[in-house]
Amino acid sequence: MRLPLALTMGEPAGIGGELTLKAWLALKDRARGPKFFALDDPARLHAEAAALKLPVPIVTISEPAEANNLFKTALPVMSVPLVAKPKLGELNPDNGKAVIASIERAVALVQSGHASAVVTSPINKAALYQAGFKHPGHTEFLAALASGMNSTAIQPVMMLAGPDLRVVPLTIHVPHKDVPHLLTQELIISTARITALALKTQFGIAKPRLVISGLNPHAGEGGSIGREEIEVMEPAIAALRSEGIDVRGPLSADTLFHAAARKTYDAALCPTHDQALIPIKTLAFDVGVNVTLGLPFIRTSPDHGTALDIAGKGIAKPDSLLAAIRLADKLARNAV
Amino acid sequence: MRLPLALTMGEPAGIGGELTLKAWLALKDRARGPKFFALDDPARLHAEAAALKLPVPIVTISEPAEANNLFKTALPVMSVPLVAKPKLGELNPDNGKAVIASIERAVALVQSGHASAVVTSPINKAALYQAGFKHPGHTEFLAALASGMNSTAIQPVMMLAGPDLRVVPLTIHVPHKDVPHLLTQELIISTARITALALKTQFGIAKPRLVISGLNPHAGEGGSIGREEIEVMEPAIAALRSEGIDVRGPLSADTLFHAAARKTYDAALCPTHDQALIPIKTLAFDVGVNVTLGLPFIRTSPDHGTALDIAGKGIAKPDSLLAAIRLADKLARNAV
Repeated sequence: MRLPLALTMGEPAGIGGELTLKAWLALKDRARGPKFFALDDPARLHAEAAALKLPVPIVTISEPAEANNLFKTALPVMSVPLVAKPKLGELNPDNGKAVIASIERAVALVQSGHASAVVTSPINKAALYQAGFKHPGHTEFLAALASGMNSTAIQPVMMLAGPDLRVVPLTIHVPHKDVPHLLTQELIISTARITALALKTQFGIAKPRLVISGLNPHAGEGGSIGREEIEVMEPAIAALRSEGIDVRGPLSADTLFHAAARKTYDAALCPTHDQALIPIKTLAFDVGVNVTLGLPFIRTSPDHGTALDIAGKGIAKPDSLLAAIRLADKLARNAV
Repeated sequence: MRLPLALTMGEPAGIGGELTLKAWLALKDRARGPKFFALDDPARLHAEAAALKLPVPIVTISEPAEANNLFKTALPVMSVPLVAKPKLGELNPDNGKAVIASIERAVALVQSGHASAVVTSPINKAALYQAGFKHPGHTEFLAALASGMNSTAIQPVMMLAGPDLRVVPLTIHVPHKDVPHLLTQELIISTARITALALKTQFGIAKPRLVISGLNPHAGEGGSIGREEIEVMEPAIAALRSEGIDVRGPLSADTLFHAAARKTYDAALCPTHDQALIPIKTLAFDVGVNVTLGLPFIRTSPDHGTALDIAGKGIAKPDSLLAAIRLADKLARNAV
């Protein structure tokens, strides 16, 4: 039996509810398409559907398995009630506990074999911190939940996946000046191992091919434009190759992402956030998917934020959420 | 009268000769297309045409104006003789003086009103240094020639131009770790001024719109991921705006290059080499053109190197040289 996907609520003042409704509308008539249930507040989804004039019947379920048969007629929701009625565009810390509970229940359901994967709607960390959230981010929280709250047991790795490009930033939301000392051999080796393993086990690629871009322009040009390639990256890549991981680099980042180059690898690891995210967002702006590698379950999320500024206006595009749902479903069926 | 373009020889052991021949073949029958003459050694071009079985008659001219009428029947060449017969793939410093002379004559002809623009074939700096070349690079040499060898009089600015994107890296071939201290307010202001002026005078854009990407991920997110945006970039942008230059930023680099974003500006200035070159090479790998702004004449060049490894094999693609010739011709006619 194909299990349904668990979709979390995310920040209730953002565009998550609207996108959940639109995703159901886009998928309800696809008999062979992915099916999901929302871990959300049925009343707030009903109110949003009414306000946006979206024809989405809501049905409350008590078991994920009910979602499969119901999906064609109504959006299945496992109830995670909000304390306060959300005002779109306005954060309310009172609702933080429900946002967290939605994520906790999604992880519990996927780990107990009741859901095939977790798809997360974007959260607002500031609002959650006021509700007692103690994790650096969404992904770290998932890793902590997956490891029984042992926060060092799992290194989650962020991959951005588009239709014909997968990238993994080795450093993410850190200042430019801090990248050189964060880019250690250990980081490169552990990230590449997790990526190669996930490409095998989750993406079904028997012999994954990795590339790594240099930190400096032209990958340092033999040391004349920076030495991190020689001192840090080449030894790490040699160590990975000696383990049997197919990885090439460090390669010049600027010539790594045109159509012919993209065909030569299954994922590109990049020292900086922008090296990885510029090509994926240039090529696949609305359909890029965030995939968290290294977790003991499949987790995808749309590649955008809570968009408080446009919440409730009816103009949010569900493309990235739909891509996240479709990719999670494919990964769960090992059918990428 | 439409003047012909001056095409320099570049490194004679590289792919420059082959591309010159292929560019003429691609353009000779276009009555309204751009016309050029090569500043090159007629004998070496003849030998390359014979070796590659390219049907290219060579005609030696003494004045650029002769090129216009001759162009449809033969490749017009103003003779710049080589000392040694070039071996493709093997650098020979004996030929350095001719490479330099070709560039000098091109600049003299465009400055005296005999050529409409300079298109340069790629050079090999190592070979030229052995021939007494004393400039940091090709572009700096052109700037020195343009200013009567006063090397501080002109700040040349590198722009990469593709079919629907123009980018200007604020720093170029420098290590990642050096970018923060090189990224000064003065650099941002002078580069933006030159870019805005060139977009007006050379590209014919009455009110050019510039954007500037942040140095840090998400343009620093209000200081939480680096402070260069607040301390250096914002004051520079405010100063530019007070001069009446239409410039927005600092903006997150990763969301600046998708199709809808590209429509909102005429050129994007980026703190790092990779931020600028990744999107242009991802989108326009074979047809990107290098345009030097800030010179008192038009100069374009193909966006590739001498490619010694494939010289003489007949497989070099003239797409970027053709794009450089076409863009130089359009700029000369103010018809972009």
